[in-house]
Amino acid sequence: MGREQGDDGMAERGSVVTPSAEFPPLRGEELSALRRIGERWRADRQPGELPVDQTLGRYRRRPAPTRFGRLAPIELFTVEEPDELVATAPANLPGSRFGRLVTRLRRALFGPPLSSAAVLYERMRKLVALPVLSSDLLSSVAYGPEAMLTVLALAGTAALGLSLPLAAVLVVLMIAVGVSYRQTIQAYPHGAGSYVVAGDNLGTGAGLAAAAGLMVDYVLTVAVSVAAGVHAVTSALPGLTPATVPLGVLVIAALLAANLRGVRTAGNLFVLPTYAFVVAVAAVLVVGYLRAAGRGFAPVPPPALPAAEGLGLLLVLRAFASGAVSMTGIEAVSNAVPAFRPTEWRNARATLGWMIVMLVVLFAGLVVLIRLDGLVPVPGETMLSQLGRVTFPTGPWYALLQAATTLILLLAANTAFNGFPRLLFFMARAGHAPRRFLHMGDRLAFSNGMLALAVAAAAIFVAFRGHTEALIPLYAVGVFLAFTLSQTGMVVHWRRRRGPGWRRRLTLNAVGAILSGLVLVTAAIAKFTEGAWLVVLAIPLLVLLFQRIHRHYGTLHRALALHPPPAAGSAGAGPAEGQELPQEVRHLVVVPVARLNRASLRALAYAASLGQPTLAVHIAPEDAEADRFREQWRAWGDHVRLETIVSPYRAVIGPLAHYLEALRAARTELTLTVIVPEVVLRRRWHRPLHSRAEQRLRAALRALPGVVVTSVPVHISD
Amino acid sequence: MGREQGDDGMAERGSVVTPSAEFPPLRGEELSALRRIGERWRADRQPGELPVDQTLGRYRRRPAPTRFGRLAPIELFTVEEPDELVATAPANLPGSRFGRLVTRLRRALFGPPLSSAAVLYERMRKLVALPVLSSDLLSSVAYGPEAMLTVLALAGTAALGLSLPLAAVLVVLMIAVGVSYRQTIQAYPHGAGSYVVAGDNLGTGAGLAAAAGLMVDYVLTVAVSVAAGVHAVTSALPGLTPATVPLGVLVIAALLAANLRGVRTAGNLFVLPTYAFVVAVAAVLVVGYLRAAGRGFAPVPPPALPAAEGLGLLLVLRAFASGAVSMTGIEAVSNAVPAFRPTEWRNARATLGWMIVMLVVLFAGLVVLIRLDGLVPVPGETMLSQLGRVTFPTGPWYALLQAATTLILLLAANTAFNGFPRLLFFMARAGHAPRRFLHMGDRLAFSNGMLALAVAAAAIFVAFRGHTEALIPLYAVGVFLAFTLSQTGMVVHWRRRRGPGWRRRLTLNAVGAILSGLVLVTAAIAKFTEGAWLVVLAIPLLVLLFQRIHRHYGTLHRALALHPPPAAGSAGAGPAEGQELPQEVRHLVVVPVARLNRASLRALAYAASLGQPTLAVHIAPEDAEADRFREQWRAWGDHVRLETIVSPYRAVIGPLAHYLEALRAARTELTLTVIVPEVVLRRRWHRPLHSRAEQRLRAALRALPGVVVTSVPVHISD
Repeated sequence: MGREQGDDGMAERGSVVTPSAEFPPLRGEELSALRRIGERWRADRQPGELPVDQTLGRYRRRPAPTRFGRLAPIELFTVEEPDELVATAPANLPGSRFGRLVTRLRRALFGPPLSSAAVLYERMRKLVALPVLSSDLLSSVAYGPEAMLTVLALAGTAALGLSLPLAAVLVVLMIAVGVSYRQTIQAYPHGAGSYVVAGDNLGTGAGLAAAAGLMVDYVLTVAVSVAAGVHAVTSALPGLTPATVPLGVLVIAALLAANLRGVRTAGNLFVLPTYAFVVAVAAVLVVGYLRAAGRGFAPVPPPALPAAEGLGLLLVLRAFASGAVSMTGIEAVSNAVPAFRPTEWRNARATLGWMIVMLVVLFAGLVVLIRLDGLVPVPGETMLSQLGRVTFPTGPWYALLQAATTLILLLAANTAFNGFPRLLFFMARAGHAPRRFLHMGDRLAFSNGMLALAVAAAAIFVAFRGHTEALIPLYAVGVFLAFTLSQTGMVVHWRRRRGPGWRRRLTLNAVGAILSGLVLVTAAIAKFTEGAWLVVLAIPLLVLLFQRIHRHYGTLHRALALHPPPAAGSAGAGPAEGQELPQEVRHLVVVPVARLNRASLRALAYAASLGQPTLAVHIAPEDAEADRFREQWRAWGDHVRLETIVSPYRAVIGPLAHYLEALRAARTELTLTVIVPEVVLRRRWHRPLHSRAEQRLRAALRALPGVVVTSVPVHISD
Repeated sequence: MGREQGDDGMAERGSVVTPSAEFPPLRGEELSALRRIGERWRADRQPGELPVDQTLGRYRRRPAPTRFGRLAPIELFTVEEPDELVATAPANLPGSRFGRLVTRLRRALFGPPLSSAAVLYERMRKLVALPVLSSDLLSSVAYGPEAMLTVLALAGTAALGLSLPLAAVLVVLMIAVGVSYRQTIQAYPHGAGSYVVAGDNLGTGAGLAAAAGLMVDYVLTVAVSVAAGVHAVTSALPGLTPATVPLGVLVIAALLAANLRGVRTAGNLFVLPTYAFVVAVAAVLVVGYLRAAGRGFAPVPPPALPAAEGLGLLLVLRAFASGAVSMTGIEAVSNAVPAFRPTEWRNARATLGWMIVMLVVLFAGLVVLIRLDGLVPVPGETMLSQLGRVTFPTGPWYALLQAATTLILLLAANTAFNGFPRLLFFMARAGHAPRRFLHMGDRLAFSNGMLALAVAAAAIFVAFRGHTEALIPLYAVGVFLAFTLSQTGMVVHWRRRRGPGWRRRLTLNAVGAILSGLVLVTAAIAKFTEGAWLVVLAIPLLVLLFQRIHRHYGTLHRALALHPPPAAGSAGAGPAEGQELPQEVRHLVVVPVARLNRASLRALAYAASLGQPTLAVHIAPEDAEADRFREQWRAWGDHVRLETIVSPYRAVIGPLAHYLEALRAARTELTLTVIVPEVVLRRRWHRPLHSRAEQRLRAALRALPGVVVTSVPVHISD
């Protein structure tokens, strides 16, 4: 990106996410080229009035009696402005019965389609955004402290004392990253993801690397959190263990379905479990600290643990990197800025602030309380569970805590369903991802991105047969790469802009960048052999793929861009496909005729009615058949010039394509219109009874430049 | 068939199998309708000279340097008659690199393509036809006598004595069926299969039943004989047993490949094994009878066998039906008459005569010799093997006999590869089977039929995991149904024709019919519960399928048939697809435009150059985008009428299709030409980067009558 085209376009377009993103406006030079092309346009004969009323006048679809005998008149289009019709919901229904059934089913599952005008209404309020975007971040509190303590415990009981200083550093990191992202959101109010920030300040490569890191992480989040959730279920109901893989796929499908219903509906679904988890952990903290206050905050001495390893720097760093997984998911808000109600960046920034506060309180509170209660990691029970058991020895509170924890672990995946498609949207808009990720589905959600995420996560889940725990070490690398690049990008940003207070802001981002970078390096090295090498390998490959995609779109864009027309004198001399003016087009109409019947006569009549030079071609397997066909042709009256080609090897498509190529090779400025009579069958099971000659011909002619293919259908009613 | 259309057509066409069979000539009334349509043809403007030389004049493909730097000028077409080009072999090569590779591979496997002119040369000489068509029949000698004796042995030693009278009856049956088929070949010199004969004399239903019976039998023959062959191999090399299924599929593929090389090449492959088997069995007989003569033809008393069942009529009939399997394959010649060199029927009749003689000699000789040597069925060793061991106690002769037997059992399948596709050809010509079975492939073989047989047999083989022995009881029903129907048909034939000697001929066919019918009934009843019920069920279902196919082709034929045009006054009033004259066609050209670029301007220029009323349509996701697009349109110059449709649910295809349908509903006589700009990408991996909007639009518009779809391509070079 940096200073190049994609980014320019983004700035011009106004970076608000709208359904019109699929239709980028023309740039200045293209618009002026368009004007100059238009000036030279000379239609051979000016078309008079249209034979029908294009506005459909008072057209109504004939009222069809419904199943209950009532009449249901449906207006498919309403007229708003003189040259503008508005399609109503029924106009979206496909024509075939099967297609309509699928559409109905989809609407029953995902709700009725939402109008583009609802795009603002579909945005998130802060109270909804918080659970939607924070479930990933907050859920990691459930395992983050434990991950850190488990590493420290390797060096024996004494090392556990390091948990407090390490937690302090992590809190600093959390605050630094959080504040830094708050600054970023303000600086990039239309979408502040690492991809945009890193790309804008450090160059395209850095932006793509950040994007690749995040994408890997999003996919892993879904696969791993679903695996954890399913594992919790199968632990409770061991009978379901053999069904792990289908269960996981089912959960992913359910998450996908919920998110396809649109961000607002999905948000409402996720409000309760997230808040329940926060309340439950908060209750643990309150009760725990009250109890500790009761004994004057005297720490319970932890049980003695044997030291398996020495307490070296590497171990401390590993513990630090492990604890840092508590921060995965912090990125979610920055990509989702455009999903907030206006003023987007303000609301997003406030939401991020709350999230950070909640994260720091819960994380620090838990680490300190664990230390006060003298708890140590024990195989077979999570530390949060131990803490819950100590805090709530009786009553239903412990069970509620466990239930809320399971639920939020399962829903952590949902944050990815928000982040991943938005990231792809930004990438697609700059031409680094397939354009279909720009499309907003029926429910104004980025359905294609959600589908891609679900498919990728399900594939990993199935490939690992549900044992995705092996993937946990792969986690931190991607997301901390994105953090580091984003913060470094912000440092560059402040150095360039030098707005008020830039030194303070730069320092904040620099601290965030350094701490994030430390975690990144530690995680990559300490977990390299455990699987992080996969991510280290995957990220450059993904970057390469994104760059290839960008190059393709660039080529395409240049090939299709409008250029000023050549000088008037040279009109009609160029190759057919370069002709942009009607007076330049030189026609030759070719009608392949296999036999004389209603379909081919219809095609011949259509061809002749165009009033252009016309040639019919018949491919015969033998001389005798060619003679017989010419006889029939003469009986018809020889109205169109006929060329018969004997194909002694009985191939039809090959010789025909080569013949057309030969005709065109003689005069490249010719536009060959091949008019193919096509018999359209109503029933699917009849298709194998017919050769797919038309389709095969079309496929063969696709490759030939300047060859236009026209299908003239004849419909068979049965 | 009977007196109906299909048969009429067949008689008209001259029933010799040629590559032109795919192009049936017009019938009388169609030809006169064609004349009357032609008389009313008025082209709006008479097309002048064509802008290119349609005969390609001296066109040569530009000589391309080959890999070795030499120039290889290739003439793709040669000019023979004024309006006729002849495509040379290189003109059959597909244009794409992948397609050319496939073609080259196919040619390496199956040989270069054969010209239609070679069709006579590709026919079989009698000496080649004999092994090709008789391997199935003669191979059954290897197990027929044993099948009969095994049933008789159930009633104890005494019952074995019945083998001689039963064999005598079977010999009578063989001769009767053989002579009867010889008569049939003479009466139906263009193809004398049961399908044709039964259909012609007893009605379509009977013909189809015979065809269904034969088809079931052909498929079973391949599956069972390959299973037997593979079993022989895995018995010798037990290590290969786990590979039974892939081995069997491989053998079927090899048979298919050999047959796809064409009947002449395949014939040469099969000459040796068949003659080797005949010589081996003949040697057994000669040596055996010489030894028996040495002891004055005194029979060796067989060992005493306990009687498991009483010797009832049913047992005798079962033995008879089991022995009759020796006759499966006798039908092969009658369907293959057109595959002989001229005079076809004479050569076919002579070949059939030899086959019958060989069958009778081998069958009767073996039964009598077994009786003389006092052999009885023993589990674990075939009777032919016992006989070989007794006859050749020393030397390599026994091993040779066994090898030849294994080989011919494997090759029995080959007869089916000759019979099945030809049967399908005759059925396709009468419209009872898909038309693609009329097509002669590269090597003048009915490749599609062979492929269908191989696929069906392989499917059965895989479904039964190679244990197709369970299918043996299903065998006789199909083929004896065909025999019975064919002979009964001949009885009717003689009664109708009453030529010289018709009473004698009728009697012969009647005897054949009665004996075949007896075998049919016995086999169906005795083996019903062993699996014959499957065939009894499958045959009517197949007949139903054939009739449905025929009905579809009939509907299609009627729908596409040429009819005399309506009175001149009503011109232009009918619906668009009925218009067969250029002056009737009323145009409206519609160009869907998503954005203004080179591709859409090219489509607009093309549309305008046709000089017909033209309307451009833009589908916008929101009002704002619609306004922006109209602005660009005005910048271009507003040369074509534009209608914008706002689709607030962001669907494109649905509203567009409904809009076109609404336009057409207003005036059904309009022909709507939808001109779709299409960007053609060169590389396959680029396709997922683009929406398949053009293809989806085409699919949606396919269903609409009177809508012509025109693809105007712009090729992207990278």
